Amino acid sequence: MLTLGTIYQAQQVLNHVARKTSLIPTCGLADDCEVYLKTENLQLTGSFKVRGAYYKMSTFSESVKKKGVIACSAGNHAQGVALAAKKFGINATIFLPSTAPISKIEATRQYGAEIRLIDGVYDDAYAAAIDYQKQTGALFLHPFDDEDVIAGQGTVALEIFAQKPDIDTVVVPVGGGGLISGIAYAMKELNPACKIYGVQAEGADSMKRTFKEKEYISAASVSTFADGIAVKAPGAVTSKYCSRYVDDMITVTDDEVATAILTLMEQQKLVAEGAGAVAVAAIMFHKLPLKKKKVCAVVSGGNIDVNILSRVINRGLLTSGRLTNLTIELVDKPGQLKTVSAIIADAGANVISVQYTPGGEHMDINGCYLKIAMETRNHQHLVEIRQALTEQGFKLID
Amino acid sequence: MLTLGTIYQAQQVLNHVARKTSLIPTCGLADDCEVYLKTENLQLTGSFKVRGAYYKMSTFSESVKKKGVIACSAGNHAQGVALAAKKFGINATIFLPSTAPISKIEATRQYGAEIRLIDGVYDDAYAAAIDYQKQTGALFLHPFDDEDVIAGQGTVALEIFAQKPDIDTVVVPVGGGGLISGIAYAMKELNPACKIYGVQAEGADSMKRTFKEKEYISAASVSTFADGIAVKAPGAVTSKYCSRYVDDMITVTDDEVATAILTLMEQQKLVAEGAGAVAVAAIMFHKLPLKKKKVCAVVSGGNIDVNILSRVINRGLLTSGRLTNLTIELVDKPGQLKTVSAIIADAGANVISVQYTPGGEHMDINGCYLKIAMETRNHQHLVEIRQALTEQGFKLID
Repeated sequence: MLTLGTIYQAQQVLNHVARKTSLIPTCGLADDCEVYLKTENLQLTGSFKVRGAYYKMSTFSESVKKKGVIACSAGNHAQGVALAAKKFGINATIFLPSTAPISKIEATRQYGAEIRLIDGVYDDAYAAAIDYQKQTGALFLHPFDDEDVIAGQGTVALEIFAQKPDIDTVVVPVGGGGLISGIAYAMKELNPACKIYGVQAEGADSMKRTFKEKEYISAASVSTFADGIAVKAPGAVTSKYCSRYVDDMITVTDDEVATAILTLMEQQKLVAEGAGAVAVAAIMFHKLPLKKKKVCAVVSGGNIDVNILSRVINRGLLTSGRLTNLTIELVDKPGQLKTVSAIIADAGANVISVQYTPGGEHMDINGCYLKIAMETRNHQHLVEIRQALTEQGFKLID
Repeated sequence: MLTLGTIYQAQQVLNHVARKTSLIPTCGLADDCEVYLKTENLQLTGSFKVRGAYYKMSTFSESVKKKGVIACSAGNHAQGVALAAKKFGINATIFLPSTAPISKIEATRQYGAEIRLIDGVYDDAYAAAIDYQKQTGALFLHPFDDEDVIAGQGTVALEIFAQKPDIDTVVVPVGGGGLISGIAYAMKELNPACKIYGVQAEGADSMKRTFKEKEYISAASVSTFADGIAVKAPGAVTSKYCSRYVDDMITVTDDEVATAILTLMEQQKLVAEGAGAVAVAAIMFHKLPLKKKKVCAVVSGGNIDVNILSRVINRGLLTSGRLTNLTIELVDKPGQLKTVSAIIADAGANVISVQYTPGGEHMDINGCYLKIAMETRNHQHLVEIRQALTEQGFKLID
């Protein structure tokens, strides 16, 4: 059974192992409340997961330690288990599907874990992990549905309370529910008036539905780029803690998460992964009653593939009018490109690519499409450029 | 005259104004030394500049305060001055060329400064600022060549020393020399054995040349994407402090800086601007004698335009083999694209764009080029894909 004493004990155990991550004040994320970021993206392994994994291992007997631990994950849990096992000198075997991103495999391997790549999807890797457990007797370390793991994650709340005792609201990303269970339990013990809100991705909202509908709901599939919280089945233990200690649960869309990631980069100079940015997204898009509150948003992790980050930035630039695609239908006669280029340059935009393709059958035989990508200042800037082109007789498509 | 007492006094003044930014331990940046990051990119306004600006203003008499301050900058100095002036209730007028990036103009305006956009380049803005100073008597706040400003920047060293007293080497980005003057003076007073190294961009190395050649050198032009340290003329005062307290100065290339920015994002979850990443670049590329040292790299700022960040990421992905452009010369007959797509998909790469253009005059009239951009795991992965395509009879260009 979880107690505040257990969580303080976990804090002792984690002392000099996990980082006490900064609680950073922000400006500009919300107009009507104070927002502080608990920067677990700056934690060792890039997420809070090392807390629960390390504390769990500290409870192992010597015989359990000898048999080693198993995890089945391509993400933050795998890295947390790998680092914690390394610090204890325990063998860790991590099962993951062979399609997992190479960057995550390499990060896990670098902490010294043994990697088993299994052909197929997550379920195949899970089956292989269970087989291995039966053969070896190694302990299968659950990523969230375990009270010791929850106690470890709860140390985040002890730090928030020590760093700023007058925080009155904590907003927490939710996948399987381990992090929010620990934080909600600890915060309500420390300050019963403190509100705790959970945030899930719209495409992976089993825990939210379980919370709202008061019966256990598991999804057949999930769809979100926030892979750290793309969980089909909430925990049984964590569902119980959520129903008792969490005030409300809501969801955010992938587009809202992408905007939050971009804002965290631009304004706060922090890299967050999708799962790590959902609490910030919920605040930015006014999903919660936060007026005049002192709010802590937990930024739970920063392990985002740079390929995906690059796409998030591009989408954000498009959304905010700073990257623009224009398609112009024109008659293919000499000097057209020069005229268009001059109009764009005079307006102060920066052309980054040009594509020139023959027109469709409805057009003149000399007709063609000119597709231009350019850096613009904002939506207004684009309006000005479109107007200048139209005034010169060019026909814009879209 | 600068004293350690002045710098401690600046620390008192800055208490509750500037953030005491975290000193974050790293792993993976260098094999043979311990590296800690002083995260001034997480400072208010996104750089250390607010320290010097605020302390300078604290020394103003009431009559100077009434006349206001002037700065001529499109970058970190402008934002530092704007925020410091707002906190003192002083009018700040910032002159900058009208071609400055809109994101930087908006960031400065949001702190309440009055913005004067001047047609032309930096020198025109500077001339306008001097005119305005003559008319109004407002104080022109120099970005670096001022002992009070240097004292403010020196508070960074007091924090490093308090956070980890056994740091034995500090590596500092250098533009005009204000930050390194303050840090070098303070660290040598606190721990004379501590080594201080300055890092400049290869395309903006006036202070390094002044340091090495022991005579004042000013450049006619500068060329680097690290705009925060793109300074033509080093300070007279700062040159004196550098020659006396700095152990060595070196340079890094723009490509090295881009790699450092990407590494800070991926491994440390921190956004740094070009100027902010030069110290890390110097460490990663073994430019300094750091073996077995406890090294603090100052990450001086994080104000990078996301358009530029996006390009830095893309270049880093290309360099590390995770984004790949392939051009295939093929005969334009049905089914070719299908075959190529199948080979790439089987190899586990992810196609992100395809361009199909008619071939040149040396080719068969049905010939065409297929240009494919795809996400790959690493260079080895690309080699495998190229081999698979070649084995199937496709001709690769480049």
